Amino acid sequence: MPTSQRDKLKEKIHEIIFEADTTAGKAFDIGLLLLIMASVLVVMLESVQGLQARYSDFFYALEWTFTIIFSIEYLLRLYCVYRPAKYAGSFFGIIDLLAILPTYISLIIYGTQYLLVIRALRLLRVFRIFKLGHFLSEGETIVRALKASRAKITVFLTFILLLVIIIGSVMYLVEGGQNEDFSSIPRAIYWTIVTLTTVGYGDITPATGLGQFLSAFIMLLGYAILAVPTGIVSAEMVATVSKAGRSNNTQACRYCGGEGHADDAVYCKYCGERLN
Amino acid sequence: MPTSQRDKLKEKIHEIIFEADTTAGKAFDIGLLLLIMASVLVVMLESVQGLQARYSDFFYALEWTFTIIFSIEYLLRLYCVYRPAKYAGSFFGIIDLLAILPTYISLIIYGTQYLLVIRALRLLRVFRIFKLGHFLSEGETIVRALKASRAKITVFLTFILLLVIIIGSVMYLVEGGQNEDFSSIPRAIYWTIVTLTTVGYGDITPATGLGQFLSAFIMLLGYAILAVPTGIVSAEMVATVSKAGRSNNTQACRYCGGEGHADDAVYCKYCGERLN
Amino acid sequence: MPTSQRDKLKEKIHEIIFEADTTAGKAFDIGLLLLIMASVLVVMLESVQGLQARYSDFFYALEWTFTIIFSIEYLLRLYCVYRPAKYAGSFFGIIDLLAILPTYISLIIYGTQYLLVIRALRLLRVFRIFKLGHFLSEGETIVRALKASRAKITVFLTFILLLVIIIGSVMYLVEGGQNEDFSSIPRAIYWTIVTLTTVGYGDITPATGLGQFLSAFIMLLGYAILAVPTGIVSAEMVATVSKAGRSNNTQACRYCGGEGHADDAVYCKYCGERLN
Amino acid sequence: MPTSQRDKLKEKIHEIIFEADTTAGKAFDIGLLLLIMASVLVVMLESVQGLQARYSDFFYALEWTFTIIFSIEYLLRLYCVYRPAKYAGSFFGIIDLLAILPTYISLIIYGTQYLLVIRALRLLRVFRIFKLGHFLSEGETIVRALKASRAKITVFLTFILLLVIIIGSVMYLVEGGQNEDFSSIPRAIYWTIVTLTTVGYGDITPATGLGQFLSAFIMLLGYAILAVPTGIVSAEMVATVSKAGRSNNTQACRYCGGEGHADDAVYCKYCGERLN
Repeated sequence: MPTSQRDKLKEKIHEIIFEADTTAGKAFDIGLLLLIMASVLVVMLESVQGLQARYSDFFYALEWTFTIIFSIEYLLRLYCVYRPAKYAGSFFGIIDLLAILPTYISLIIYGTQYLLVIRALRLLRVFRIFKLGHFLSEGETIVRALKASRAKITVFLTFILLLVIIIGSVMYLVEGGQNEDFSSIPRAIYWTIVTLTTVGYGDITPATGLGQFLSAFIMLLGYAILAVPTGIVSAEMVATVSKAGRSNNTQACRYCGGEGHADDAVYCKYCGERLN
Repeated sequence: MPTSQRDKLKEKIHEIIFEADTTAGKAFDIGLLLLIMASVLVVMLESVQGLQARYSDFFYALEWTFTIIFSIEYLLRLYCVYRPAKYAGSFFGIIDLLAILPTYISLIIYGTQYLLVIRALRLLRVFRIFKLGHFLSEGETIVRALKASRAKITVFLTFILLLVIIIGSVMYLVEGGQNEDFSSIPRAIYWTIVTLTTVGYGDITPATGLGQFLSAFIMLLGYAILAVPTGIVSAEMVATVSKAGRSNNTQACRYCGGEGHADDAVYCKYCGERLN
Repeated sequence: MPTSQRDKLKEKIHEIIFEADTTAGKAFDIGLLLLIMASVLVVMLESVQGLQARYSDFFYALEWTFTIIFSIEYLLRLYCVYRPAKYAGSFFGIIDLLAILPTYISLIIYGTQYLLVIRALRLLRVFRIFKLGHFLSEGETIVRALKASRAKITVFLTFILLLVIIIGSVMYLVEGGQNEDFSSIPRAIYWTIVTLTTVGYGDITPATGLGQFLSAFIMLLGYAILAVPTGIVSAEMVATVSKAGRSNNTQACRYCGGEGHADDAVYCKYCGERLN
Repeated sequence: MPTSQRDKLKEKIHEIIFEADTTAGKAFDIGLLLLIMASVLVVMLESVQGLQARYSDFFYALEWTFTIIFSIEYLLRLYCVYRPAKYAGSFFGIIDLLAILPTYISLIIYGTQYLLVIRALRLLRVFRIFKLGHFLSEGETIVRALKASRAKITVFLTFILLLVIIIGSVMYLVEGGQNEDFSSIPRAIYWTIVTLTTVGYGDITPATGLGQFLSAFIMLLGYAILAVPTGIVSAEMVATVSKAGRSNNTQACRYCGGEGHADDAVYCKYCGERLN
């Protein structure tokens, strides 16, 4: 096969697998999404004992079918991209690999097949396929607001961590003797986190009067603390919303498969190669 | 009966049933609200076994009485409106039909009568009856803010869904063997949602040390995540509050029964017919 | 006793009881606060069975002592104010009366003495006594923001109420047969509220797969819904904070005992009488 | 040893212990952080009965080793600072002392060694060591926003406290007789706080129909109330974010060990001595 012909084939495969503008490309992407959803569903159902007992062989066959299809797809992606290493190292490249590895590993180590749910992450492609670039840019607005408040949230979480260690130890001292539930400081810290975040399972609860009094105090504290991260993110969101630009571009780079390029971009912002 | 006379009758019925400006119209509407509330209450009480055993016949009679009254009202509404099809297809038209159907269906399929609580939705008319147009426009402000943040919330929920699938699977791997509570991935995902949303029933709780450590981490994550939708809605609400206009008009179209017209509207915005 | 002398006495009593500017007035107010706190504490401890069994007589004596002191104080307040009816009908006047009534009523109906905790509301005077007018005006900022968002919150709560009735009925249909916990629609509605507000006791939990799936959906909904009231209040608070004026006046009207007058007020804003 | 030589030694020690700019200083600080983390971990593990039974002697030895190291460090800090009293009375000075005291006290009173987790607070130095001044200033932004909303939050918490006392008493009256869970007003108040803050353990739950109805009402109230502190903090955060200045200075005063000086500061803002 002469080089130019092989290049044409590569070009063709790239268009179908990476782009969603042609009919074939769109059909491929939608089929892929359905396959991914089906495969995630199978992994979930496989863990249900009643079903596993009855359909064991069926699930096993399905799992390998999905894995082989995704493996072929992965190899094709590597093949048709100009710079396979770039793609393999990109976010989607890694996800695509992690989505097939567990089945192979499960031949050696039992149980790893449940890690296949990582395939769910591949569904993120949905935003690109349905030209939901608008949604992607909204996602970026959220990410930008979170990034802007990163420092504040780090300080806040450090503070919470120290608080939780100290409260947990005090509760251990108060309840430890009389209450089986608070049998160690780590357990007491677990309880403190369950309480401060207002999850409140009730698997561990204070039994002494003093313990309940302290708990009530901790809950009110949690109530006030809950306001802080919300305030931080709200403030940044208010600031970010007005600045947010919108981009709707779904083009993928021919060299590394990178996405999210500006409308007027001429070169890929990840690998520097020319976009077509 | 000559056409003009029949038209007058229609006019009269329309005024009583659809409008709330005349004494008769207001009396009808308030009576209707009380009937609706009573009928919803009866459906609820009917489900309480102690009461059902004793007052079974009484409830049955009441249910059919309400249904027949509402059926007549529905037919009258269809009759007096110029374009019955428009009304039947409108939001309130569908609700009005759904509010009577379950009783008839319960003759064939048992249990459907509990669906009658859909009648509760008819209470939304309360805003129109008491000239609470102001409240309606406030509701619109909320809806507008939610619509403006729709894209962000979709991205956010997609992200949460994927997160929940992956966390659930990891917890299944960690707890699955030792803990009856985490007997399958769907159950583990259910637990993850219960935890991330800080509901925390406590019907499923981690038992191993590693599971509790991961749970604590997931809760802190949920804590931070909780801030995101609040931040999104707050930011949009801040932006929307200032723009919000107010309308207090309670006029209903003579042709299709549509409501929510601007004060200076001459034609119905739903069917284009002249308003009186 | 001549009128002028009686007036002087009234004046003196008013200064001590109502004002907090003189040494005697401040001493009286602080003593009163301590008495109130002690009496609320006694009511609470009285309900603890272990203590009640042992100190029954002591608690009984204390309760009557507090009640008699507060009764005398109430009569003195009525006596020294120019317009007793105005004071008796004011917020603090009603609270002061409710704070003594239950003890007298408990002579006739058993159990009412626990209503004495209403005395706790009298502690609100603390803000006036310690010249915390600044705090009061902050409280007014909150109230103003809440008032501004009243319409939105009413619409929101109406919506929640209807949602809760419908979700509750659906869950009753789904779980009712197989699960003792969902034995009636009112119980299912109770569960829905417990879940939507993320309280999550766990005393009622879904048992069927479908029920758990719906619950997960309801929780994510509750998550999104939680953002709405916060967004409303935040938006109004942002708007209100900038407008908020501050007042620090602790003067009480000589005629009706009303408080919260502007610094440049010459006449009481409640009864129209001249302030001194 | 002549004075000048002793001064040089002091200077050297100060540089290593207090500053993080030289290699030796940084190495010391990182070593210190690791020691603190190890010692907190040991205190936690010591409380786990299984481990305590087996490694009792090992933990005991470790605890004393850490305490002796930290004691020497504390004495060196006191020695090399020009004004030891200032350092001893500063925030970090007090923490440093509290971090060693419990071990010595545990010789007399059993159980106090668990208070050693207060050492965790020493980890706050991490921000200075890694030149995370940026983070510190972010923390100050949070603190500033919280301070600005202090008055509002005080009013809010007072209101919550009174609300909780009254609701608790009403629930005691309603449930008290039929339900073991609500055996006293303090317990009922504990339940109210657990519910209002949406923690919801489920260790205490209403059993009567009326009690559940009231609970549902209280939860919806808690839902609305939750919006208030978040609104307060959000509003202040929006206002504070724009004003926030940034400082990145990690210099510690030679006299009192005080930190957080402005870049152009020539004199310590705590003790007024010249900075080098």
